[in-house]
Amino acid sequence: MRVLILGGDGYLGWPTALRFSERGHEVSIVDNFARRRWHQEQSTDSLTPIRPLEERIEVWRELTGREITAQIGGIEDGEFLDRVVAETSPELVIHYGEQPSAPYSMRSRATAVETQYTNVIGTLNLLFAIRDHVPDCHLIKLGTMGEYGTPNIDIEEGFIEIEHKGRKDTLPFPKLPGSLYHLSKVHDSHNLHFASRIWGLRSTDLNQGVVYGIETDETSRDPRLTTRFDYDETFGTVLNRFCVQAVIGHPLTVYGKGGQTRGCLNIRDTLQCVELAADNPPELGEFRVFNQFTEHFSVAQFAELVRDAAAETGLEVEIKSFPNPRVELEEHYYNPVHTKLLDLGLQPHLLGEELVRSMLGIIAAHRDRVIERAIVPTVRWDPGELQSQPLDTP
Amino acid sequence: MRVLILGGDGYLGWPTALRFSERGHEVSIVDNFARRRWHQEQSTDSLTPIRPLEERIEVWRELTGREITAQIGGIEDGEFLDRVVAETSPELVIHYGEQPSAPYSMRSRATAVETQYTNVIGTLNLLFAIRDHVPDCHLIKLGTMGEYGTPNIDIEEGFIEIEHKGRKDTLPFPKLPGSLYHLSKVHDSHNLHFASRIWGLRSTDLNQGVVYGIETDETSRDPRLTTRFDYDETFGTVLNRFCVQAVIGHPLTVYGKGGQTRGCLNIRDTLQCVELAADNPPELGEFRVFNQFTEHFSVAQFAELVRDAAAETGLEVEIKSFPNPRVELEEHYYNPVHTKLLDLGLQPHLLGEELVRSMLGIIAAHRDRVIERAIVPTVRWDPGELQSQPLDTP
Repeated sequence: MRVLILGGDGYLGWPTALRFSERGHEVSIVDNFARRRWHQEQSTDSLTPIRPLEERIEVWRELTGREITAQIGGIEDGEFLDRVVAETSPELVIHYGEQPSAPYSMRSRATAVETQYTNVIGTLNLLFAIRDHVPDCHLIKLGTMGEYGTPNIDIEEGFIEIEHKGRKDTLPFPKLPGSLYHLSKVHDSHNLHFASRIWGLRSTDLNQGVVYGIETDETSRDPRLTTRFDYDETFGTVLNRFCVQAVIGHPLTVYGKGGQTRGCLNIRDTLQCVELAADNPPELGEFRVFNQFTEHFSVAQFAELVRDAAAETGLEVEIKSFPNPRVELEEHYYNPVHTKLLDLGLQPHLLGEELVRSMLGIIAAHRDRVIERAIVPTVRWDPGELQSQPLDTP
Repeated sequence: MRVLILGGDGYLGWPTALRFSERGHEVSIVDNFARRRWHQEQSTDSLTPIRPLEERIEVWRELTGREITAQIGGIEDGEFLDRVVAETSPELVIHYGEQPSAPYSMRSRATAVETQYTNVIGTLNLLFAIRDHVPDCHLIKLGTMGEYGTPNIDIEEGFIEIEHKGRKDTLPFPKLPGSLYHLSKVHDSHNLHFASRIWGLRSTDLNQGVVYGIETDETSRDPRLTTRFDYDETFGTVLNRFCVQAVIGHPLTVYGKGGQTRGCLNIRDTLQCVELAADNPPELGEFRVFNQFTEHFSVAQFAELVRDAAAETGLEVEIKSFPNPRVELEEHYYNPVHTKLLDLGLQPHLLGEELVRSMLGIIAAHRDRVIERAIVPTVRWDPGELQSQPLDTP
């Protein structure tokens, strides 16, 4: 199968490229190295040293004889993306090519605009390219569980049957996204749904939980194939960040009460889910939503798990409540449905102390690369003192 | 009250500016003349001859002694908008400054991107400017009934109480927008809701039906104050277009079966609704949605009404079904709630033959300005033959 992976240089994109290449598919990558640039701009970096894309691709070819091609450019550039889609004529597009950080989107007007522009316009360009060149193509798009927020009812997978004043319809599940990044994903979902309803395209929206983990079967074959691992305030996700904090002796930064509950999954299960979606494509005209996570935990539970696992390796870890930089419910109902991927055969790698200890071990090997100042949150959702500033404030 | 009107040169923006000025408010207009430019690009024009903005403002000053100020620029330019909001320090912003046409948004990738960029990023810039300079300001934003589409249940005003698996919550009403333009408005609504939930801003989203009519109390005082009147495929709305067709002897272009039902209102009621919203602002942190229309009709009913009214003035009018260029249900359930503005005191001007005859009269006076080729639809929602084109197709 011809597979085009947008954001194929990233945390999930690169391991996905290797997995589909390993399975014998013809893999092309698109990336503009935005993540590497954003790290440069904030003087941070991946914990794991990652190689330039061309070098990674060469190493993979040396090890396996398999070819991955790469095209460098941004999906915001509609002409570029149109040409890439026309030339590669993909049967499957896997779209990771977005700005993925909530704190980044909340930092300033400029980063908010960049986020919604990159994500919404980039995906819109993609929908046009698919419509015009490969209308049968299956688009697998990474969404997020954060699109739903924390409503007081069970969260369904994308759609909900509503009975109202004696009538019934199945409609898109209402969204209460928690950041301008999460909003961009909500906008994307609406645009994807439209492309299915009106143009007859087919897509799978993977509303993913928080991903943790470092290694996959393919990336662990050679250190030069390792994927990036972010732990900083901006791009790190909660469990990954806590593990790094445990290794360097930094208190685990629980925001507020820590009752915020989130679905999560192992990076190995991300790959499994994407493969399951690819192997079981939707019908033409179908917009399908899977809630992609295997378990859910509160932030406090994540912290306790890391503390306990670390204790067994001799690390003494403190858990500390930080003033919550986000505006969110710190205690809430949370019961999202996530059966569709299980029905397709997903075999979850559940989170336990053993997995955490293995992450701690890998992190310890890169301990000297940790940039400690990047860990504590500085971006506030409600920038109190910024409000009502007179014009001449710098 | 200091009132900032975005899109104040437009069909609704200009009469709104005059109304608020007439009421003694301090009115500033922002416009970048995008609508005038889009007309130039397609060699079409307003039926009514409209004056340059500065001239209109001068005429108004001569007639009333009242000052309206104008600042020329696009809301996509975040620095410009930030400066305007800081300098004018509005207590009320009325936001009409968007690309308002569904067909325009469906014409090409470029116009789709322009639409979502202008509307979503422009409104995002506005939310930041309000947050940073005038967080108490009331934002009145023009949305559209088209955000909801045509679900099989009654449409509520923005939010719906959902009972699901024994639990309850009031959540945003699910959206099934019918074009990439309507999607941009859905995206805006989600961004506005977020700004209320997270930043504590207050806004009223007016989900407006199809507007018809030409004159308001203020614009009819002098021909140089007239507002624009669009009847072309791109910017004309259904009743206005039918009236022009009746005058020039063109068959009324009903798309498909004509069972498509839409809420509508007189331009005079648009002004009334905006005033009611302004006079009864929401609380800080509240995102309020009003469904802004007074009646609903099917497209076929609009056509019959115009035919019957025209007959009384001696015009013989043919109704003709055109292949529907849009992808939409041509027969559907439609029962949207619209009580909130009535509760605030809205006194509707209902649609009848007398109103249509008065429109026909005004149109007849400008009959020589009608550009007939601009009437028949050319933009298709599902551009069949465009699909699967090879790369070297021009």
